Amino acid sequence: MPDFSPPPLAISIGEPAGVGPDIILKLYAERQEHDLPPFVVFGHTEFLRARAARLGYDFPITTAPAEFASTLPVVDIVGLVPDHPGAPSPLSAPVVIEAIRQAVEATMTGTCRGLVTGPIQKSALYAAGFRHPGHTEFIAELCGTGRLPVMMLCHDALRTVPVTIHVPLSAVPGLLTHGLIIETCRAVAHDLRTRFRIAEPKLAVAGLNPHAGEQGSIGLEELDIIGPAIAALQFEGIDITGPLPADTLFYPPHWRRYDAVIAMYHDQALIPIKTVAFEDAVNVTLGLPIVRTSPDHGTALDIAGTGTASVRSLLAAIRLADRLTAAR
Amino acid sequence: MPDFSPPPLAISIGEPAGVGPDIILKLYAERQEHDLPPFVVFGHTEFLRARAARLGYDFPITTAPAEFASTLPVVDIVGLVPDHPGAPSPLSAPVVIEAIRQAVEATMTGTCRGLVTGPIQKSALYAAGFRHPGHTEFIAELCGTGRLPVMMLCHDALRTVPVTIHVPLSAVPGLLTHGLIIETCRAVAHDLRTRFRIAEPKLAVAGLNPHAGEQGSIGLEELDIIGPAIAALQFEGIDITGPLPADTLFYPPHWRRYDAVIAMYHDQALIPIKTVAFEDAVNVTLGLPIVRTSPDHGTALDIAGTGTASVRSLLAAIRLADRLTAAR
Repeated sequence: MPDFSPPPLAISIGEPAGVGPDIILKLYAERQEHDLPPFVVFGHTEFLRARAARLGYDFPITTAPAEFASTLPVVDIVGLVPDHPGAPSPLSAPVVIEAIRQAVEATMTGTCRGLVTGPIQKSALYAAGFRHPGHTEFIAELCGTGRLPVMMLCHDALRTVPVTIHVPLSAVPGLLTHGLIIETCRAVAHDLRTRFRIAEPKLAVAGLNPHAGEQGSIGLEELDIIGPAIAALQFEGIDITGPLPADTLFYPPHWRRYDAVIAMYHDQALIPIKTVAFEDAVNVTLGLPIVRTSPDHGTALDIAGTGTASVRSLLAAIRLADRLTAAR
Repeated sequence: MPDFSPPPLAISIGEPAGVGPDIILKLYAERQEHDLPPFVVFGHTEFLRARAARLGYDFPITTAPAEFASTLPVVDIVGLVPDHPGAPSPLSAPVVIEAIRQAVEATMTGTCRGLVTGPIQKSALYAAGFRHPGHTEFIAELCGTGRLPVMMLCHDALRTVPVTIHVPLSAVPGLLTHGLIIETCRAVAHDLRTRFRIAEPKLAVAGLNPHAGEQGSIGLEELDIIGPAIAALQFEGIDITGPLPADTLFYPPHWRRYDAVIAMYHDQALIPIKTVAFEDAVNVTLGLPIVRTSPDHGTALDIAGTGTASVRSLLAAIRLADRLTAAR
């Protein structure tokens, strides 16, 4: 691992057949316009040169350490990475996985100050033997905390956290436990204090049922599980309110009263964020010993290699990682 | 029933202890500013005079028929309606219920051309013996069609329809049937053609599960129920697409491609509408022989009688009922 000083951000390349490399290269090309903080790409130098040539970029791409102002620094991972936009291959999976591993390690050791991950194609990794439930779980395991990683979606002042994520909707009520809600909210309150430097974060919790159950007339989870979990968190001194009806909670004058909204399931957290901020939303992982952000979109295989993918979410992810890791 | 010519809109007064009467009176006071179409209030003249005096309005309130430009016309329902803002009473329930019944009858017979309903307080009606599951179901029964009434939320070009409504989230997967989805979508397509005069309405259907189930890896309802229902509707000639991931579907450039989005449950339909249009959203009931709209908010007991309630949703409901019933 090369030595960097001061520590740059680490960007793991993600799926080479997707738009991740495109938007990393495009943002590097626009680094002055956006006044970007220095970053290092954990990826594959030859592949990045091939993709850059395909997109018409002529800046140098150099093995790190290198001067960010004049060349894109790459921590080169050994392996085979064909430049076939739109066609993910298990062949490149070992490089994708090793890039994440080395980027996490560099961030854990302080060589890099925060991690931004490019979108991966899980199916290609599974075909190559990857056995983790997802990108975030893999990173949490590499960090070795044994704690639950928590996904937060951010856009300006709107921050939403789904308590359950990629599970069938029918499984959500059974997965919502007192313990899970408490652990999630604690991680949110902790990281808002330590990472976002909000001295006394205010949290709101959405109900599971329509109108937050209307005192038990439309479902009991608010009375049996969510309400008691909120009471326990209040007893710990966390400023937290709920369960509130999810629909009116996302009316902007309502959510603006809170530093984060805890949602019970994926779409309850994602719909409001994407409704107001599709291209500018950032995914940040809480509960880790490092700062990790990622753009809130997938590999968009259909437009990979064309140069048309929007850089906005990756740009927002870099800016947020920069802000959360800036010297105080 | 008095005779009106040309037919005005009917407004049922809703809960007297709530903000319904406040916003009806406020809008009448601002009728010229908003260029409102004539309407008739189905309610209680003495009560409305008392509330108007409380709010400082001095326009005349007269038993219908009356000249809308100079006096607020009321179809007076016999009964007892105390003016106690914030304190719903079963005493006034018979007037509330009879007002809805007569307003529906007047609209069914063509004496009025469309119905706008003020928000009701179901608990007060239940205490007085009301036995219908809700406002909309009562109106559907009065209309006597035997068909399913369908709730659509509208704001500008965004129209969302929840297939299931006021049920616990845990009950949603079991309630989603091929037949229910088909019947709902048919009513939407039919009424968009006949009422909204959209010659070939384009519908989109959201998935139930995160990412619309990812081809069965996060839930099977898309493959087993929603997808086959969409295929059957396409076979009938309806322009309908889905199931699509609910989060990205509500990104404005995506929903703008469709005339309506069919959601699987309450919050999936309500969150996006309230996120973009809280105070201007209108609830319109499809599948009825009459046009019925209502403001998309409740009785707001805490601010009733203060004159601070926003008229925006009622105004939008009146405008939509006017537009949907205008002569062609």
